[in-house]
Amino acid sequence: MTQQPMPRGTTSGTPTSSAAGTRLDPWLGSYAERTHGMRSSEIRALFAVANRPEVVSLAGGMPFLDGLPLDVLSDVAARVVAERGLQALQYGSGQGDQALREQILDVMALEGIEAHPDDVVVTTGSQQALDLVTRVFVDPGDVVVAEAPSYVGALGVFRAYQADVVHVPLDEHGLVPEALEETLGALAAAGRRVKLLYTVPNFHNPAGVSMTPERRPRILEIARRYGVLVLEDNPYGLLGFDREPWPALRSLDDDGVVYLGSFSKTFAPGYRVGWAVAPHAVREKLVLASESAILCPSNAAQISISTYLATCDWRGQIKSYRELYRERRDAMISALTEHLPDATWNVPDGGFYTWVRLPAGLDAKDMLPRAVTARVAYVPGTAFYYDGAGADHMRLSYCYPTPERIREGVRRLAGVVAGERELVELFGTGGGRARGDVQTPAPDAF
Amino acid sequence: MTQQPMPRGTTSGTPTSSAAGTRLDPWLGSYAERTHGMRSSEIRALFAVANRPEVVSLAGGMPFLDGLPLDVLSDVAARVVAERGLQALQYGSGQGDQALREQILDVMALEGIEAHPDDVVVTTGSQQALDLVTRVFVDPGDVVVAEAPSYVGALGVFRAYQADVVHVPLDEHGLVPEALEETLGALAAAGRRVKLLYTVPNFHNPAGVSMTPERRPRILEIARRYGVLVLEDNPYGLLGFDREPWPALRSLDDDGVVYLGSFSKTFAPGYRVGWAVAPHAVREKLVLASESAILCPSNAAQISISTYLATCDWRGQIKSYRELYRERRDAMISALTEHLPDATWNVPDGGFYTWVRLPAGLDAKDMLPRAVTARVAYVPGTAFYYDGAGADHMRLSYCYPTPERIREGVRRLAGVVAGERELVELFGTGGGRARGDVQTPAPDAF
Repeated sequence: MTQQPMPRGTTSGTPTSSAAGTRLDPWLGSYAERTHGMRSSEIRALFAVANRPEVVSLAGGMPFLDGLPLDVLSDVAARVVAERGLQALQYGSGQGDQALREQILDVMALEGIEAHPDDVVVTTGSQQALDLVTRVFVDPGDVVVAEAPSYVGALGVFRAYQADVVHVPLDEHGLVPEALEETLGALAAAGRRVKLLYTVPNFHNPAGVSMTPERRPRILEIARRYGVLVLEDNPYGLLGFDREPWPALRSLDDDGVVYLGSFSKTFAPGYRVGWAVAPHAVREKLVLASESAILCPSNAAQISISTYLATCDWRGQIKSYRELYRERRDAMISALTEHLPDATWNVPDGGFYTWVRLPAGLDAKDMLPRAVTARVAYVPGTAFYYDGAGADHMRLSYCYPTPERIREGVRRLAGVVAGERELVELFGTGGGRARGDVQTPAPDAF
Repeated sequence: MTQQPMPRGTTSGTPTSSAAGTRLDPWLGSYAERTHGMRSSEIRALFAVANRPEVVSLAGGMPFLDGLPLDVLSDVAARVVAERGLQALQYGSGQGDQALREQILDVMALEGIEAHPDDVVVTTGSQQALDLVTRVFVDPGDVVVAEAPSYVGALGVFRAYQADVVHVPLDEHGLVPEALEETLGALAAAGRRVKLLYTVPNFHNPAGVSMTPERRPRILEIARRYGVLVLEDNPYGLLGFDREPWPALRSLDDDGVVYLGSFSKTFAPGYRVGWAVAPHAVREKLVLASESAILCPSNAAQISISTYLATCDWRGQIKSYRELYRERRDAMISALTEHLPDATWNVPDGGFYTWVRLPAGLDAKDMLPRAVTARVAYVPGTAFYYDGAGADHMRLSYCYPTPERIREGVRRLAGVVAGERELVELFGTGGGRARGDVQTPAPDAF
């Protein structure tokens, strides 16, 4: 018998533990290729600080839950276990609970979607749906086209599957059809395999804009012509401030769109329940992939949500969220107008985020440590680009802090920006950090 | 601008819907390489039938939950939302709840594991931990060494990441060290990259055996010498019938083992809470991978489990499960002895499963449709091999049906076996299906 022992790392035997900073990783040579692209976000350490109570965090995407009727939800939770415990505590279907999938149709009907419960796959938050769709479609080196900027958590998934992300600009009407056509044409000419067009059409994270109804069929037509599946990520679609929801892309194209929905923003994220709606054959693949990934989604969580939908006024809850977040949006915009007149921003008409362009010469990533020192946090724009662009922007979220805290946060931010501008005027730069660093999502940078 | 449209499938424009059986998959050309290896189990359709109440299912791995104190657990669920709702319903840490991670140390202490809460990563069932570990370590073509037979859900994960699985025999004392040494030596000589040794050391699924304390250090030493990380999957370790748990592999080697635990078998699977314990650097990768896959595990589920552990007699619950499953094991063995004297089997001293070798000439996979027609179901041995071996075995689980139903199921099975033997004696074969089919896990083939 031939033996070719391959001892771990560079030392023989079991490595000794030492301080974390100097400890060798004995398994460094064993990781998969994809793992070398995983790294902790540079802003993660700052987020740990940003979660201190004295810091106003305009960084996270956590919904504000204080308005939920906890007494009612406590009764729901008790009934789920008392009356349906043997089902709620047991394994369930890989595709998800049938009754919940039917109720999800009612939710999606608000955006014009007609589907069958069999088309729905329940997932552990819509993040898992992103993971599963990417797993099913993307080989290393395949291209995913995404808006510029784009949701940081989706970019992390695409990176984990070793995709190349090519950004296409958006403007105040959403993804720009002409730019999409040009990009897909160039990629086709270059012989690249484009697998997905990833879009957040409503109240975009981070850009705050929505794809207009006029553009939607045009975007779908272009994607169809190039054989690219559209991945419609829609956690915020029901959280518009001033209008009813626009028709989902999925409502216009059954076969060319995988739609992702979530209860995290319209109800609560703690159950981790989202879903995908996919064409028949794709849905079968998603179920197989999900069974491999988690066996099945939590019955306890699904039945809790199902009972909530069946017995509580979920439409009224969404209405109250809309009013809550509109008030906070107003606080954010008025504070920006007052304190940061030299920056520019959009006025989102729904969702959680304002996308702020800093005065010329400022770098949001460089500035972040100084902002945290001044007890205010945000996510620098670089997090939302695959290629390290976006340093001139920051995402300010208004979902979680109270209006008063939002105003205080922006006031502090204005002080940081003023100081940074002085540095730029004196030295020509506010910091001088290298651009182009790749980031992975921070834990609360939803 | 050059355009090279790539219309989907073979038709232009949106494909028309028709009956599912004849509908073309317009996205067939877009799937990732890994997806072509995903396929629905041939036994899945049979499982749908097997779940009918008139069928005695000896197939599934569902724990028997009727003994859980639902009134107490209902109070727990109510308190989680009423008293800690703003945390339970919110996003949480990607690594998992700190308090729960500390409590998990108490559970693992029962098997001699000493760890730090920072070493623990909470996952959506230990199936997700399997997925994450494989994601972090396995490139396509890498080798995973696993027991023969091995847990069907793990084989599905390894397949999803395009690993090659090489089986190593086990006997009544668990994985055979000499066979492991020989296999790793041969693989090293062949220049293969072996990334993981996957083992279920306690009350093996499906083989029902445990790795003896004498063998454990030998297995670890061999793996260490070949630089192979040990993946210790331990859902059943606390469910021994006649003895206290043996020391976990992880208790003997901090740096060479990733340990997977679960509350699914010792409490309830419906919350989908499992965990991994990993060396420092590996743990960091697992957290990053999990954030990409699901953002964070469910706080509602974690706090429910944490409250259960803190306020209920979880050790007593495990004791009552041990007694329950021992009684069912006894029913299974006595029924086998009475009705299937020509088959052979082990007598498991814990866990959920008996591994039965059929009389010569019989094929468990071929026989399954006839068994289901006779209103009894099992999992054919082929499900537990990567290479289609195992047709001479079947897994009979005794966890879910009552002792009376177990006896009735084995009685029916004996009738099927008798009929099958007549066919073999008459025609030389019981069915004649091709061997070597690849299977993916069926939804309830845990």
